[in-house]
This record gives sequence, structure tokens and C-alpha cells, in this order.
Amino acid sequence: MRLEILPVLGIGHVTEGDDLAAVIATAAPWLRDGDVLVVTSKIVSKAEGRLVDVPADGPERLAARDEVLAGETVRVVASRGPTRIVQTQHGFVMASAGIDASNVDKTQLVLLPVDPDASARALRDALRERYDLDVAVIISDTMGRPWRNGLTDVALGVAGMPAIRDHRGEVDPYGNELQLTQMAVVDELAGAGELIKGKCDQVPVAVVRGYFSATNPDDAGGARALVRDAAQDLFSLGTAEARAAGLADAATLADGRGPTPVDLTAVRRAIDAVAGVVTPGTVFTLVDEAEVRAGLVAEMPGWPDGAALVLGSAPTPVEPIGLVRFGADLHRLRVALAAEGVGSTLLPPPPGSPASAALAL
Amino acid sequence: MRLEILPVLGIGHVTEGDDLAAVIATAAPWLRDGDVLVVTSKIVSKAEGRLVDVPADGPERLAARDEVLAGETVRVVASRGPTRIVQTQHGFVMASAGIDASNVDKTQLVLLPVDPDASARALRDALRERYDLDVAVIISDTMGRPWRNGLTDVALGVAGMPAIRDHRGEVDPYGNELQLTQMAVVDELAGAGELIKGKCDQVPVAVVRGYFSATNPDDAGGARALVRDAAQDLFSLGTAEARAAGLADAATLADGRGPTPVDLTAVRRAIDAVAGVVTPGTVFTLVDEAEVRAGLVAEMPGWPDGAALVLGSAPTPVEPIGLVRFGADLHRLRVALAAEGVGSTLLPPPPGSPASAALAL
Repeated sequence: MRLEILPVLGIGHVTEGDDLAAVIATAAPWLRDGDVLVVTSKIVSKAEGRLVDVPADGPERLAARDEVLAGETVRVVASRGPTRIVQTQHGFVMASAGIDASNVDKTQLVLLPVDPDASARALRDALRERYDLDVAVIISDTMGRPWRNGLTDVALGVAGMPAIRDHRGEVDPYGNELQLTQMAVVDELAGAGELIKGKCDQVPVAVVRGYFSATNPDDAGGARALVRDAAQDLFSLGTAEARAAGLADAATLADGRGPTPVDLTAVRRAIDAVAGVVTPGTVFTLVDEAEVRAGLVAEMPGWPDGAALVLGSAPTPVEPIGLVRFGADLHRLRVALAAEGVGSTLLPPPPGSPASAALAL
Repeated sequence: MRLEILPVLGIGHVTEGDDLAAVIATAAPWLRDGDVLVVTSKIVSKAEGRLVDVPADGPERLAARDEVLAGETVRVVASRGPTRIVQTQHGFVMASAGIDASNVDKTQLVLLPVDPDASARALRDALRERYDLDVAVIISDTMGRPWRNGLTDVALGVAGMPAIRDHRGEVDPYGNELQLTQMAVVDELAGAGELIKGKCDQVPVAVVRGYFSATNPDDAGGARALVRDAAQDLFSLGTAEARAAGLADAATLADGRGPTPVDLTAVRRAIDAVAGVVTPGTVFTLVDEAEVRAGLVAEMPGWPDGAALVLGSAPTPVEPIGLVRFGADLHRLRVALAAEGVGSTLLPPPPGSPASAALAL
């Protein structure tokens, strides 16, 4: 058992309208059933005419590029300086939406194929129908990733095999069910193809031979299956962007209660968290004795049933600007409570109490 | 030109103290100079005794596992439910610090090698010195990644070649300098190795042949070169964690000015951002006419030179709880300003002004 990775040499410049199946079959008459073709997305884009004209240089080029990027962007995930990590309409998260200015005329930019799975399927179908070749096709591109320097090639589209090899249910020799079950083999195949493409000049197609003897027409949703839903992703936003979103959350914090019963330890942590930044003399007190709380809240109209109570007192003597500062301190506490997952509502103090305000938690 | 990926068959269970060079050289007498060995980190860990005993099941197992994880964790990057994405002492960001319970007895956990680059170097040196083989060695492990489903194998350690192939300075046929310059080829090699390991049962070593004719003793810092510094990383924290950090920032917001001159458009955006959540009747006014501002701030002791001025007025008639609510609104605005990168300081209103408070920006 062995795999071979072979370069397809002799593919020249690809231009709009080129018949990629013919180009590849001509350059690689040695293709066999079961081969995996790893095709650089750029030649697919070029053949499909996914090029836009831009000025060759100057600020006009930058402006045009920004406009093209905006058109390819569904969502900005992170940015710093000129770097833009965005989610494309395919769902891929990539720098600059995969727009590329290399291996193309200076007055053009190359966009990703509109539907790389469809491109892969079309190429696979054409090779089967016209050249009697049953191959799998991967459309690959180069991406960076968080946490690790360096780029790798991964799959944007696939046909003739599923993107993921699932080991679920397999058991190791020790009787443990396998933990790491879903391997993104098309990404590993794309990377394997890059190893030989990167060694040669201008080799946009590599072939992995021996990975299987027969392709699988059920591609299980193609490379789209690799796109993790943003809601499921622990890194759906850049750190700076998420941190700014946290600030925005704090600015627009709504009244309301979180999960009940309230975690009183979390409330104490929140009070501690702001203790060093509130105006000296501001005091927050968690009223944790049930009887005392019941006595105080009995007088408060509309008190939420069973809510925990924090009393806040402004420094004395109480002056107007002191109450303003105290109100700011109280919002600090509400935000710190929110960071602990504790919701709160600002209420007037219990009648007759020396406190300046109350929080219902 | 071609690459071959070959499995090393016949490697049995590896246990502490095993001589990996002997194990591999015996199982693969066909190794050649220039081969790249892709060695699953687990057999390196086992040979190096990186195993810990844990109860086979029950809550004791979970508790023991948590303790082991804490010991392998330098920094928690993200967590959700039972998932912990952490940074290890090597700098790698991985689920559960790479601790693995598969392919090992139920009463043991496998930790990552202490220094995978050193492990790779030791294996390479042993094969050269004792078997006259000049090979590169990659220690690989399986990792997930943000945004894309499925796992891939990547490199934890390398010897005999640099982790990154740098195309910097190369020019494409169109005269463009290459944009994507640094390829993490050891990760692609690790993934290529997984393709054949995953096809066979219990194959912990793969060989990539043909990648180069001679190894490079300068490994340029090994796989550590792949670790991106957290400060440089746009995704150094999980989204939920960063968002909570943003809330904490808001709770502990300090007085102070940001970059000057202040972006007045950003100030207006911040005022708009809180307009829907402040108490009805609360009014924030950016005093943007220089003469008016100069007249107002002339009376304010310690006014920061050249600072922008926002006046805030509580709803009338002004009552104590109204001033508290207004203070909370003012902190909302300060936080919204911070989200725009604008620093602020809460000050008493100018003498004689009907405003309740002022912000110096």
C-alpha cells in the first residue's frame, strides 16, 4: 500500500472559457480511475471568468480592491491594520475573501469560484463523460489559520468523495471508542497536493494516486460540509471584535434576570471586581439574609418574586454629582454581574432605607 | 518527479523505554536518505513515559482528567460545555492540551511529549548515528481548528528540515511578487502521513519519500516556529471569553483620554448607540462649537487642554433616583465611547450650567 503524489506538468496559462477537463486530460494522459485531482482554485476561477479589472497601482487600486472585497464579504470576522479576515458567501473564513493578485495580470484580481463544489462536480463529470475517467476532484486554495504560523492548502470544493472520513464507532485495540473521529481528509489531500505543486514552478494540478481504488459518487455535501456554523464556532469573531462587542453589550445592557436562582458567589465576585474602581465611599451590599430581604422588598412595588437584592449607597454627604457618580458605579456593578451571567434591574431603594438604589437580581 | 507516502507496518505496541529508532529501523529496513518520517506523537509519548494513571471510569476519572489537564494548561483560550481549548507549555493551542485516552489502556492518559522538537531531533540523530540514515523527522498529532469541521494532522516537532518553506521574494510569471509566501509544509507533510495512517489499522509511522534528496540539518527553530505569539494572533481568545473580557473592561473602565484629536463622528456614533437604552429625557450633547466649548470649560478647574466636551442632562424634574439613573446612562455612554476607542473622564458640569455632568474626551 502506498500513495503517490504526481504533478501535472505542462498546463500553460488558463484563460476564461478554457475547457479544464481537456486541458488536464491532455497534460496528464496517464490519469487513472481512482486518482484524486487536486486543482488549484485559481485556474478554475480563471476558466470560469472570475476576474475583475482593477487599476495596476496607486490609491485607485486599493480603493477598487476594497470594493471587490466588500462584494465578496458576507461578514467581517476580524481585522487589524490592512488585514481583513472575512466570511465569504461559501461560508469559508479567509483573509481577503480569497481574492488573489498573484499569477494574474497586474490589472486583474482573481475571485474564488462561485460554487467550488459545483466546479469540482463539473470537472469530474466532464472527465468521466468525455474521457471515461472516474476520478475525485478537489478544488484547493491556500489559507492561513489562527494560532499557527504558515499557510496550508485546504479544500474549497470536492466531488467524487466525501470531505470527511468518519471513524465514528471504531474501537482501538484497548477497547476505547475513538475520540478523534472526523478527519478532514480532503484538506490533507489538498495539502499533500501543495507539497508537489510548491516544489515545481507553475503546477496548478497534482494527482494523489492510491488513496482509493474507486471514487464515491456520494460526496456527502461536498466541501460545504467543512464549514462550521458560526453559532457552533468558539472563534466566530476576532478577539478585538468580540471584546468591542462586549463593550457594546455593556453600553446597551438591558434590565432583566438571568438564570435563577442567582449564584450568590458570582454576585460577590462581581462586587469585588468593581471594588477597586468605584468612587471611594460607594458601598454595595448583597442582602443575603432571607428575612431581612423579605422585609425590605415587601415595601417595593413590582419586586420580582424571589429575586436577590443588592443595596447600593452613595458616599455621604450625598450631593447631586455624587449621585451621578454613584449611578455610574451601579452600572459598573451591573456590567460585572452580566460578565458573571447574572442579570439585574435598577430600582429605587426600599422606602425608608438609607440606600441610594437597589438592584433586583 | 513524484512523492510517495508509505506506511511503516509491523510496529507493535510501544511502551515506556522502547528504542523508537530501533523499532522503526527494524520495521522499515527500506528507509532511505532524504525520507521524511511522520511519527504519531502518541508512540513518542509512550516511549518517553508521558503517561499518567487515572481511574478507568466514574467521576473519579473525570476529576483526575481535569487535574491532568490543568497541569498541561498554560492558558485557557476558550471553553464551552466540556470542551476546553487551551494553550500548552509548547505554545500549541489544542483541545484538552492534546491529552488522549485512545490507543492506551483505560487506566492511563497519554500526554504530549515534553519537547517534540527535541524528540524529533533525538530520533533523527539516533537513526543517523546507529543506522547511517539521513532522514527528516516530524512528530505529528491530530488537531481541530476554528471555522472548519473535521480534524487534520499537523506537526508538533520537526528535525532535519525547517517547518516553513518560504517563497518570499519569488516572482510569478506576471511579475507580481508572491503574496502567500510562507507555507507550513511540515503540517502538510503531517497531513499527508495521516492519509495513509488513517487507511491502515495501527500504523503510527508514515514515510514521505521524494520530498527532497537531502535533509537540512538547520531546522530553523523546529515546529516552535509555527507557534504564533498570542499578541500577534487575531484569535487569541474565544469569542465568548473575549466578549466577557469586554464586559469586564466596561465594568472597570478607567478615566483617561484616548488618541487625540478625538474623532467627533465616533462620539456621535456612541451617543446614537445608547440613545435607545438611556432613560427617556436623558440628553447628551457634544459641544462641537469651539467658542462655546472654550467659554464653558474656562470655568472648570483642571480641564484637560484641548479636550472635547460632552454635556449630559438628567430628565427634569431632577430627583435623587433620577440622578442615579442618569449616572448609569453616563457610564453607558462612556462604555460606548470606549468601544469607539474614545477615552473619557466624568466631571462635574460647568458652574452655572443646567447640565448634570460633563465628559472630557
